[in-house]
Amino acid sequence: MLYTASFSKLIEVFQKMPGIGHKSAVRMAYYILSLSDSEAQEVVNAITNAKEKMHYCSVCQNLTETDPCDICSNHKRDKSVICVMEQPKDVIALEKTREYYGLYHVLHGSISPSDGISPEDLKIKELLQRIAGGEIKEVIMANSPSIEGEATAMYISRLLKPFGVKVTRIAYGLPVGGDLEYADQITLVKAIEGRHEI
Amino acid sequence: MLYTASFSKLIEVFQKMPGIGHKSAVRMAYYILSLSDSEAQEVVNAITNAKEKMHYCSVCQNLTETDPCDICSNHKRDKSVICVMEQPKDVIALEKTREYYGLYHVLHGSISPSDGISPEDLKIKELLQRIAGGEIKEVIMANSPSIEGEATAMYISRLLKPFGVKVTRIAYGLPVGGDLEYADQITLVKAIEGRHEI
Repeated sequence: MLYTASFSKLIEVFQKMPGIGHKSAVRMAYYILSLSDSEAQEVVNAITNAKEKMHYCSVCQNLTETDPCDICSNHKRDKSVICVMEQPKDVIALEKTREYYGLYHVLHGSISPSDGISPEDLKIKELLQRIAGGEIKEVIMANSPSIEGEATAMYISRLLKPFGVKVTRIAYGLPVGGDLEYADQITLVKAIEGRHEI
Repeated sequence: MLYTASFSKLIEVFQKMPGIGHKSAVRMAYYILSLSDSEAQEVVNAITNAKEKMHYCSVCQNLTETDPCDICSNHKRDKSVICVMEQPKDVIALEKTREYYGLYHVLHGSISPSDGISPEDLKIKELLQRIAGGEIKEVIMANSPSIEGEATAMYISRLLKPFGVKVTRIAYGLPVGGDLEYADQITLVKAIEGRHEI
């Protein structure tokens, strides 16, 4: 065995991270060993703290440290519009454009029978409860332009019809099959502007 | 602020790691949040354990969990030859070739006045103590083929002359200016075979 047990384990946990191959994991492990004890403790604390403090907003289900989150509790936001997103990182992508002032709702995934993800696994019930509150005039379905995202948007839009709320779909300015997170900001704005009623 | 404080901090510590840019750090931070509490604890434990258990071998100064390390305490190794290396990862690179059966000595760097690294910052004193023990017949200087590595090899070879020990330099089969860690195994073996007396 070339590496010691504890060093191999460190490489192993890094290698499980997204986009990290063996060489990168080894470099990261050596980096950890090169840190002072207090610097290493800082890394450990950052992980522990984020895990402890971050949770889902009880309203929009986005990741937050406060409850309700900063967006839900911001009086300047338009409380009549909800933009439905797959992931917290999608919220970040749209917030970066500074062109959207409504609220959000994070589903935490898409319906995908092949991956065993059914509607009950997503935060759809929580969305319906918000709509039942009566304040919402429009729901923008900003699911990713993938087969699963499209199907999820259609599924939810059908559930929302009885509430008499306007349901729109983010426009196809996005590259089909792509990942919403990596869309450029102008494309995202165009897609929001070009939304149409389902 | 788009990210919460604890999440920003997590991104920050990942972004300090070698080869990790902002996008990778964000993905890694989301990955941490996606882990179960026990999985996140596994990451934390791996870091803490490696920091606690890994130290320098009192003989060869390589990273180890035991003391002396597995190589120094292996009776099958040739105790008359020491290969001097800059970094623990260089030892791994040579061990992977399975063609070298002697001992090692890790300097933990090269002499580099511009970076403020003087001979006293390296494990040179410890090397001289080993040579003074009298058992060593040959010291192979396997410093990287860089200006600093070459200078360090020459500096140490001059210190070793009074001991009457044979001092050799790993052959230039390695690409000059390159990083020893990334050399392919055949090149490394050729370089060991083609070593010459300084």
